[in-house]
Amino acid sequence: MNIVLLDPASAQDDLWTIQSARQIEHLKHQLDIKIGDTLKVGIRGAGRYTAEVIEISERKILIQPLYEEPVPKKLPVTLIVAMPRPKVLRRLIQDAVTLGVEKIILLHSYRVDKSYWQTPFLQQIDHYVQLGLEQAGDTFPPEIGIYKRFKPFVEDVLPQMISVERPAYVAHPYATHSMPHAIEHPCTILIGPEGGYIPYEIDLLKKNGCQAVSLGNRIIRTETVIPYVLGRLFSTW
Amino acid sequence: MNIVLLDPASAQDDLWTIQSARQIEHLKHQLDIKIGDTLKVGIRGAGRYTAEVIEISERKILIQPLYEEPVPKKLPVTLIVAMPRPKVLRRLIQDAVTLGVEKIILLHSYRVDKSYWQTPFLQQIDHYVQLGLEQAGDTFPPEIGIYKRFKPFVEDVLPQMISVERPAYVAHPYATHSMPHAIEHPCTILIGPEGGYIPYEIDLLKKNGCQAVSLGNRIIRTETVIPYVLGRLFSTW
Repeated sequence: MNIVLLDPASAQDDLWTIQSARQIEHLKHQLDIKIGDTLKVGIRGAGRYTAEVIEISERKILIQPLYEEPVPKKLPVTLIVAMPRPKVLRRLIQDAVTLGVEKIILLHSYRVDKSYWQTPFLQQIDHYVQLGLEQAGDTFPPEIGIYKRFKPFVEDVLPQMISVERPAYVAHPYATHSMPHAIEHPCTILIGPEGGYIPYEIDLLKKNGCQAVSLGNRIIRTETVIPYVLGRLFSTW
Repeated sequence: MNIVLLDPASAQDDLWTIQSARQIEHLKHQLDIKIGDTLKVGIRGAGRYTAEVIEISERKILIQPLYEEPVPKKLPVTLIVAMPRPKVLRRLIQDAVTLGVEKIILLHSYRVDKSYWQTPFLQQIDHYVQLGLEQAGDTFPPEIGIYKRFKPFVEDVLPQMISVERPAYVAHPYATHSMPHAIEHPCTILIGPEGGYIPYEIDLLKKNGCQAVSLGNRIIRTETVIPYVLGRLFSTW
């Protein structure tokens, strides 16, 4: 937790209130904060501040904002991922948010086990968004989309996310072109499930405007490939 | 598991033997292999092959190598990481190996909790190396080094890993220069612990030939920063 992220409702008066048990536990026991210490604080969907600790009690901590600080920029990228295993989903959301992805879409695909859509983590995505923002020091949650049908998404929704200025790259081991690097424009990235998109899906993606690109001949896990691809694409950002 | 990685001892006769319970379990229950199927197989420290399944029994699977295939190239990088929490260590080793890091060094640092060096995972590193190689389809384990004293390592060992042709970059949030991208030469990368290297350590690293470079103003977890940095540095590789 590199900032304490508050709801706007907790930051309406002159003194702001930290009342999440998780945040209080971390501040008291990991950081051992005292009255008079300064903290980095963010308001969800708004600014980021340095604040001073005014009062510490059992169930709340009162702080006073001192000055505003810049919020880190987002990466101009929409990340479309075939729905992963629940354990991977948590990390993937948290990492994508930490790295500044603007929009995350979870998509069904032939090789996605249908049971993955039943995971309770899907109802807790916002918690992992919060952890990712607190790690990065960011305050703006990404947009999250969920599409449980592949074909209607690819035919009706995806084409609106693609243009000459905003290409879409699908990572595909058999592609002849390499994934570009150090681009200076927005883009959409598609990452397949374990085992990859099936040929029918790759064809449909290509027909609807995606470029299939290779990442070399190592097979990389979903949760690892996401930071790897973001580092590669946005290294000048 | 994208290849079955065997010890050279299991591959001395005309038919090779898979006898690891973990590999047999995966082949039988995840991949549901049958006699006559082909498998991707690697010999640890040697070649990679397509092989045919000849015999399946309770405790072993016999296979016949058909033809050799290329082993993925390594990245020309030495990755020096402040010893992380045990849970992170496993993932870090596995991901670094999957991505093709040539040499991995675990280093003590002021903000590394001394208890981390007691973890049983340190005795099981080779298992995570094996999993990383099997994921990538690689056969050559990286070199692994362990240094429990920061200063002697930085003063006596590190300088031998640095030259004009092989710079060393230490990720440091307060650096004025950015981490380079798409480099076409070998390098050494240093990643700090949670909370970063302390100023004394950064100074000592700089005095001994490292360049402090920034990755922007998002704070990224160790396990996430490694694929992120490798994607950024080696995107033309």
